[in-house]
Amino acid sequence: MATAEEIKEQINAQTAAIAALKKANAPKEQIKAEAQKLLQLKAEYKTFANNNGENKKDNTGSKKNFTLKTPKGTKDYNDKEMAVRDKIFDTIKTIFKRHGAVTIDTPVFELKEILMGKYGEDSKLIYDLQDQGGELCSLRYDLTVPFARFVAMNGSKYQNIKRYNIAKVYRRDQPSVARGRMREFVQCDFDIAGVYEPMVPDAEIVRIMKETLTALDIGDFTIKINHRKILDGMFEFCGVPKDKFRTISSAVDKLDKAPWEEVRKEMVELKGLPEEVADKIGTFVVCKGGREMCEILEEKLGSNETAMAGINDMKLLMTYLEAFDVLDRISFDLSLARGLDYYTGVIYEAVVNAPPESGKKKKSEDEGNVGSVSGGGRYDNLVGMFSGNRTVPCVGFSIGVERIFSILCRKMKLEEVKSNEVQVYVCSVGKGLLTEKMKICKELWDNDIKAEFMYKADPKLDKQFQVCDREKIPYAIIIGNEEVEKQVVKIKDQTNKESGNGEIVPRSEYIEYIKKLLNQN
Amino acid sequence: MATAEEIKEQINAQTAAIAALKKANAPKEQIKAEAQKLLQLKAEYKTFANNNGENKKDNTGSKKNFTLKTPKGTKDYNDKEMAVRDKIFDTIKTIFKRHGAVTIDTPVFELKEILMGKYGEDSKLIYDLQDQGGELCSLRYDLTVPFARFVAMNGSKYQNIKRYNIAKVYRRDQPSVARGRMREFVQCDFDIAGVYEPMVPDAEIVRIMKETLTALDIGDFTIKINHRKILDGMFEFCGVPKDKFRTISSAVDKLDKAPWEEVRKEMVELKGLPEEVADKIGTFVVCKGGREMCEILEEKLGSNETAMAGINDMKLLMTYLEAFDVLDRISFDLSLARGLDYYTGVIYEAVVNAPPESGKKKKSEDEGNVGSVSGGGRYDNLVGMFSGNRTVPCVGFSIGVERIFSILCRKMKLEEVKSNEVQVYVCSVGKGLLTEKMKICKELWDNDIKAEFMYKADPKLDKQFQVCDREKIPYAIIIGNEEVEKQVVKIKDQTNKESGNGEIVPRSEYIEYIKKLLNQN
Repeated sequence: MATAEEIKEQINAQTAAIAALKKANAPKEQIKAEAQKLLQLKAEYKTFANNNGENKKDNTGSKKNFTLKTPKGTKDYNDKEMAVRDKIFDTIKTIFKRHGAVTIDTPVFELKEILMGKYGEDSKLIYDLQDQGGELCSLRYDLTVPFARFVAMNGSKYQNIKRYNIAKVYRRDQPSVARGRMREFVQCDFDIAGVYEPMVPDAEIVRIMKETLTALDIGDFTIKINHRKILDGMFEFCGVPKDKFRTISSAVDKLDKAPWEEVRKEMVELKGLPEEVADKIGTFVVCKGGREMCEILEEKLGSNETAMAGINDMKLLMTYLEAFDVLDRISFDLSLARGLDYYTGVIYEAVVNAPPESGKKKKSEDEGNVGSVSGGGRYDNLVGMFSGNRTVPCVGFSIGVERIFSILCRKMKLEEVKSNEVQVYVCSVGKGLLTEKMKICKELWDNDIKAEFMYKADPKLDKQFQVCDREKIPYAIIIGNEEVEKQVVKIKDQTNKESGNGEIVPRSEYIEYIKKLLNQN
Repeated sequence: MATAEEIKEQINAQTAAIAALKKANAPKEQIKAEAQKLLQLKAEYKTFANNNGENKKDNTGSKKNFTLKTPKGTKDYNDKEMAVRDKIFDTIKTIFKRHGAVTIDTPVFELKEILMGKYGEDSKLIYDLQDQGGELCSLRYDLTVPFARFVAMNGSKYQNIKRYNIAKVYRRDQPSVARGRMREFVQCDFDIAGVYEPMVPDAEIVRIMKETLTALDIGDFTIKINHRKILDGMFEFCGVPKDKFRTISSAVDKLDKAPWEEVRKEMVELKGLPEEVADKIGTFVVCKGGREMCEILEEKLGSNETAMAGINDMKLLMTYLEAFDVLDRISFDLSLARGLDYYTGVIYEAVVNAPPESGKKKKSEDEGNVGSVSGGGRYDNLVGMFSGNRTVPCVGFSIGVERIFSILCRKMKLEEVKSNEVQVYVCSVGKGLLTEKMKICKELWDNDIKAEFMYKADPKLDKQFQVCDREKIPYAIIIGNEEVEKQVVKIKDQTNKESGNGEIVPRSEYIEYIKKLLNQN
C-alpha cells in the first residue's frame, strides 16, 4: 500500500475519532489536541503525495506487483544530500575530537530487555525484530541506553570515558519529512562517564554544544538550561504530591509549544492538581534569564533543600560556563523540563531562534520552525539500571542531524552541491586512445590524484568538457595522437574559460605539474 | 539465556541429529556435512565461553534478571578497535573518492518484498522486523540490492552513477568471531551503474580492488577472476542440462574449500550428473593462469557461442587490466563461480595468500585463514527486477571489513593503539587553578587545538603527567600561581623525557608557539 494512501486512511480515522469525541462531550483540550493531529496528518499527506509523484512515474509499466519505495518514515539520501550530511558529520566529529573524545560502536539492535523500562510511554515506539528463534531483539531507540549498557558491561576497563557516537536510531513515530522527523534518523551523541569534580564535565558538554552549533552555521541559537532538582524542589515547594512530579514535569515540558493557560488546564483538569498549586507553579515557569537567576531562585526557593542543591550546582556551572565563554548563549529557563525519565541533574536544550526578518507572523511549524536541535543532561542512575551493584554517573548531549540537515538544505541550492571530488578529467581527441587514457589515469591514481575518464571508446571533446563543467572538475588533461607521439600532454584549467588551449607538458613531468596546480588551490 | 548455553544446546541437538542420520544410513556426504557443522559449533562454544567470561564477572551481584550482553553474533567495538576500524574506513574512502565515486545512503531496513527472490537459498538468513501494524520490513542483507532498488527508483536522475557505500548489513548466520563472521557486519561497496563501453568499468573495479587491498596492507593477495558466460558455456560444452547450470555452479564454488573428489561426488551422487560429464568439468576447473588462459580456453571452447562471448570479454578486460597495471595480481581461475544468482558477466574474488613462513602444515580455518576478503562481479539484470520495463547494467565489488579487521588486529598490538587525538594537556601545580585551566582550554579550542584537562579541582602534577603518558599526549601546558601572576605558561614536550622543565612562554604568545610545535610534527 502506498504511504499516501495509508495517511489518507489515518486522516479518515482521525476525522471520525474527533466527531465521536465531540458527540461524547469530551474535554475541549482533548478535542483540540486531536484536531491538531488531524492538521498534521493532512500536512503529511501533502508532503508524501508530492514526494511520491516521481516514483510512481518511474514505476509505470512495471510488471512487478509492488510499490518501489523505502519503508514509511525512511528515505534514501542521494549524492548531493550525502555531501551535505557528510560535511555535517565531519564538522561535528572535528569538534568532538577536539575535546578528546574517542568513539565506540554498538549494534543497531539490542536485546529487547535492555531497552525495556527506559523510555516511559515512548516504549511503544520501539521497533522489534521478529522472533525467528533465539533472542528477542529491538532496534535501538537512542544511543544513550546502548552507551550505558556498554559502560555497565565494561566497568573494569571503562570507569571513565569520553565518547562520541554518530549513528542511526529508530522510532515508530508519525513521520514528518518537512520537519525533519523520520523513523530512521541519525543522532550525534557526546557523553562523559565517570566520577568527577561536580559540574566540570557538565560545563564542557554545554561548551561543546555551543562550539558545534556555531560551527554548523545554522543561525542564531539559544541553549536553555535548567536542573531537575530545581524543578523537583519547586514542585515540592508549590505543594505537588511527590508521585505527580514526573507527570506535572511533562506538562511543564509542553510550554515551548503551548501557552500557560493550556498547560495549567492540563495540570488541573487532566492531572488533578489543585488550582492554587498550579498557579504557584505558574509564577515559577515564567522565570528565565542569565546567571542572576541563581540569586532570584535562592531567594524564592532557599528554604527547599532539593531546590538549593540544584541552585548550588547551577552557581558552580555558571562560573565554569563563564570560563568557557558560553554565558552569551545561555537562558536559565524554569520551563525547560525534558521528556525522558532518566535525567537526574542539569538538563539543556538548544533551540534555533527565528531570524528577525521572518516578520511578525509566525510561520506554521511545518514550514520553517524546526525547534529543538540538540538536547541532553546528566543521568547518574542509568548505568546502575544495568550493573545493579555499581553505577557510573554520566552527562551528555545529542544533536539531531535531521533538523540541522533541514535547516542547511533550506539555506543552500542542493543542485549546486559538488558531490564528487574529481580533480582531473582525462580527455582525448581522435580515435584509439582509450588505453592511453587509462594509463594516464593509472599514473594519476598512483600519485593519489582523483581522476576520471569517459567510459567511451572515442568520445567527442565537447562531450568530455561538458562533464568537466557539470561535475565542476577543475583540470583537464587532453591527449591526441600527436601528444602521444611527442610524449606530452595538454593540461587545461577548466575553471577559467579564458585559459586558452592549455599548457603543453612533457609526459615525464606532468604529474609534478598537476600536483603543483592542485596545491596552489 | 546465555549464548554459550544456547550453543551447548545446539551441540547436543546436532550430535543427536548425526546419530539419527547414521542410523538411517543417510548418504555419507550428508553425515560428513553435519559432522562439519558440529565441529564448527564446538569451536564457537569455545570462543563464546572465553568472551563471556568477563561479562559474567561484571554482572555478579546484579539484581537484574537478564544477562548483560549484545545479541548473538553482534558485538561492541571499543575505542581502540574503532580507531583501527576508522582507519580502514578512511583508507577505503580515500581510494573510492580517488576514482570519482559519490556516496548515497539507504535505510537499514527495506520492504520485505524488495529483498525477496534475490538471494536464493540464503533468503532464510534475512532478519525480519516484527509486524507492528503497517508494512512488512526486513534488515538489508547486502548493499547491492538496496543500490539496485535506488537506481530503479531514480532512473531519470541516475541513469549512470559511480557510488560507494560503507554500511552495516545483517545475516542470521551461525556467527564465528574468530573468523570475522558476524550477524551484523560492515560492507564497503563500490558500484558503477550505466551503459558503457564493454569491460571498461569492469576493469576499473578490479583496479580499485587492487588499490584498496594494497593500501590496507593485509599482505599478499590474489584476485581470482572468471566469467559467468565462460562457466555456462563450459557446462553446455560438457553436457550439463541447462536447468542444472546454477546448482552445478554452486558445487564448483566449493572448490576453494573442498577437494575435487568431494565436489565430483556432490555433482554425481547428490545432483545426478552423469560421471563422464563431471569428469569433463574436472578437466576445466583445474585451469588457471594469466592472460594466456584466453587463448587456451578459445582452443578448447571456441565452438561454444556462450563461452566465446565470455572469452572475448576477458580478452578485452586483460588489455585494460594491463593499462591499469593489475595483471600481476590476477589469476584467471575456472573454479571461481561465486554464490549469488544475480551475476551475469565477469566475477572476481580476492583471497589473502598465506605467508610463506606459516610452514607446511595448514592452519585450521578457525585459527588463521580468513579466505576471501572481497568479491563482486557484473549484474546486468538486477535493476530490471525492480523497474521491470527498463534495466541498467551494473558492476561492482564489496570488501568485507570484518575480515580485514581480523587480519589487522592479529598484526598489531591493540592495546597500544592511540584512540584519542588530544594534542595538549593543560596541567596545574597548586590550588585554585581550575577555572584558569578552563580558560586556557577555551583558548586552545578556539584555535582548533585538541586539548583536555583533568576534571579535578587540585590534581597532583605527577597524576597529570601520568595521563599524558598513558594517552600519548605530546604536549603539556603547565600553570602555577606564579605563572598566572606573571601572565606566562610553561610548555613541555611530553614525548621527550630529557626536554627539561619546559619552555616559559608569555600568555599572549603561547597559542602561536603551540601551533608551531604542532606543525613541526
